[in-house]
Amino acid sequence: MFMSHLYAVILAGGSGTRLWPRSRKLNPKQLLDLISPRTMLQETYDRIGALVPPQNVFVVTNREYVETVRAQLPAVPPAQIIGEPEGRGTAPPVALVALLLRERDPEAVLLVLPADHVIQTLAPYLEAVQAAVALANQKYLVTLGVTPTYPETGYGYIEASAALDLENHAAFRVHRFREKPNLETAQEFLERGHFYWNSGIFIWRGDVILEAFAQHMPQTFAQLQKIVAAGLDASAFDADWRALENETLDYGILERAARVAMTPLDAGWNDVGSWAALYALMPHDAHENAVQGNHIGVNTRASFIYGERRLIATIGLENMIVVDTDDALLICPQTHAQDVKKIVDELKRRHANEYL
Amino acid sequence: MFMSHLYAVILAGGSGTRLWPRSRKLNPKQLLDLISPRTMLQETYDRIGALVPPQNVFVVTNREYVETVRAQLPAVPPAQIIGEPEGRGTAPPVALVALLLRERDPEAVLLVLPADHVIQTLAPYLEAVQAAVALANQKYLVTLGVTPTYPETGYGYIEASAALDLENHAAFRVHRFREKPNLETAQEFLERGHFYWNSGIFIWRGDVILEAFAQHMPQTFAQLQKIVAAGLDASAFDADWRALENETLDYGILERAARVAMTPLDAGWNDVGSWAALYALMPHDAHENAVQGNHIGVNTRASFIYGERRLIATIGLENMIVVDTDDALLICPQTHAQDVKKIVDELKRRHANEYL
Repeated sequence: MFMSHLYAVILAGGSGTRLWPRSRKLNPKQLLDLISPRTMLQETYDRIGALVPPQNVFVVTNREYVETVRAQLPAVPPAQIIGEPEGRGTAPPVALVALLLRERDPEAVLLVLPADHVIQTLAPYLEAVQAAVALANQKYLVTLGVTPTYPETGYGYIEASAALDLENHAAFRVHRFREKPNLETAQEFLERGHFYWNSGIFIWRGDVILEAFAQHMPQTFAQLQKIVAAGLDASAFDADWRALENETLDYGILERAARVAMTPLDAGWNDVGSWAALYALMPHDAHENAVQGNHIGVNTRASFIYGERRLIATIGLENMIVVDTDDALLICPQTHAQDVKKIVDELKRRHANEYL
Repeated sequence: MFMSHLYAVILAGGSGTRLWPRSRKLNPKQLLDLISPRTMLQETYDRIGALVPPQNVFVVTNREYVETVRAQLPAVPPAQIIGEPEGRGTAPPVALVALLLRERDPEAVLLVLPADHVIQTLAPYLEAVQAAVALANQKYLVTLGVTPTYPETGYGYIEASAALDLENHAAFRVHRFREKPNLETAQEFLERGHFYWNSGIFIWRGDVILEAFAQHMPQTFAQLQKIVAAGLDASAFDADWRALENETLDYGILERAARVAMTPLDAGWNDVGSWAALYALMPHDAHENAVQGNHIGVNTRASFIYGERRLIATIGLENMIVVDTDDALLICPQTHAQDVKKIVDELKRRHANEYL
């Protein structure tokens, strides 16, 4: 059942490189069908289909991806798929949509969703979102906090404090946000138990977030008011957008705001930040391999094998990643999955744009 | 300086699978430019260029490769590049060429050369061949024996006995041929010191080898006489050839003959029986990698990387083999290089002829 006044703001502008060589500048992670036949963007959209009708969905993405996004989400009104001439972090797009909605629905609640995350179980996710909407209607800025399962050092953490009174779901005030910790600190967070991973999923009323922008990012707020007044098809749009401050919602708003809450999310959330993460999410065969494509393995186990057309033959591989695309091939142990960035850096250094 | 009456018989019919996916049924190892810009066949031909003029070179190969061989060796008379409708081992082709030469040069000496071996240093090779020719003219059947450098279990061995008196080069009677030994026996051979690897390079007079065929393989000899009398373009050629016994020179002749000798070969001989062997032969860069193609390596060492057009990015690889061709990719540790055969077996089982 659709929740009245609920709008989705899907942020689909990233051009992450950690899933190179599949993820490319012109074909980024969120637009790829990494796990299912649907792309990550489509999965994000499908997931909230029960709560938000297509006409209440907004997508902010890079201008280069607008046509692809429109093709992937044909039910969303084309005008609500907005192309940025250049990324300016997560804060400006959300303020933009809140401004666009101000007159259309003064009671709008915005559900801000990164387009490149995985949620493995739908029901607890939808429950957490609905709980967050209830908090948002109490004028909280709400974030979903993922119950950590191991001491991850690659995520920001949320430190929860007092429990909030909510029917059917846990909820807490946010004491503060903590940057990516070292392993020792992450271990400590895990043991202390009231720390959560910052999922980047946010819920708030349109009027509340605009008030927060006016207070904490007044310059950005003023510029965006000007942009919206002129219209997104104004000739000055590009220059005005590029002039915006590059800022995240976390730093720009949440760390400065007083009334911030969180609801715990325990739904198999994953930001798919590496090939090793994707391998862990995929179904495994009897040899613990996750295979897509034409593969012959001899003594090959616990490996991720992705191919397109070519035959991939492997012998004696264990815990490896093989990603074979039409023009580029990646081979690395899962333990080195984070170093894919180094390959991309080297390609940039060489100006090998055809591979970026 | 050409040696008078010396003829080369290059055996180029193999369709080895150990260098899959580069080596294919229609593009076998001997026709590939694995190490230099010249193919292994061309290298074999070039190597004896100082001793044997092109008009004295014969090549026996599979019929399917005849046109390619003629293109690769344009100076060799086309009629001397002979296509077998089906491989029959190393014995029939050599008897065939000896019969073809019987009238042309009754004093012919035949130098039998596999087309898919590597010799790293030319001078000692040519010296060994010349010493062998001297023995051949004393009516010996001569084989070049490679001084072993480690206890290889994949080769046949030659057990030498009494030294023969030869100017400028060592030479021995052959006591017997020993099949591929187990590791313990190979170790013992190495320690005892008068055991050599059987190189498959043979030298003998035409009349002597024909006499040996008449004595030890009389049926094959008679059939080949009939084939030569009818001419290689006779309509019965295919059926007659297919009716021949499949036999090697080693088993069919040398193990049964009395007057067999060997000259030691110490010239970096290698049969390139696996990707690991090829890696060992190739020049290595500062990270001990042997790379052909477009490669970016992060923490990659002691690996063999072969690519054609695609970019190959590797992270954290050590002692690996990566062979990337247009339609198939092989990844395996060097220690598993012999298991490439298992991939080929699996492809045969699947009738995946396009990859064979």
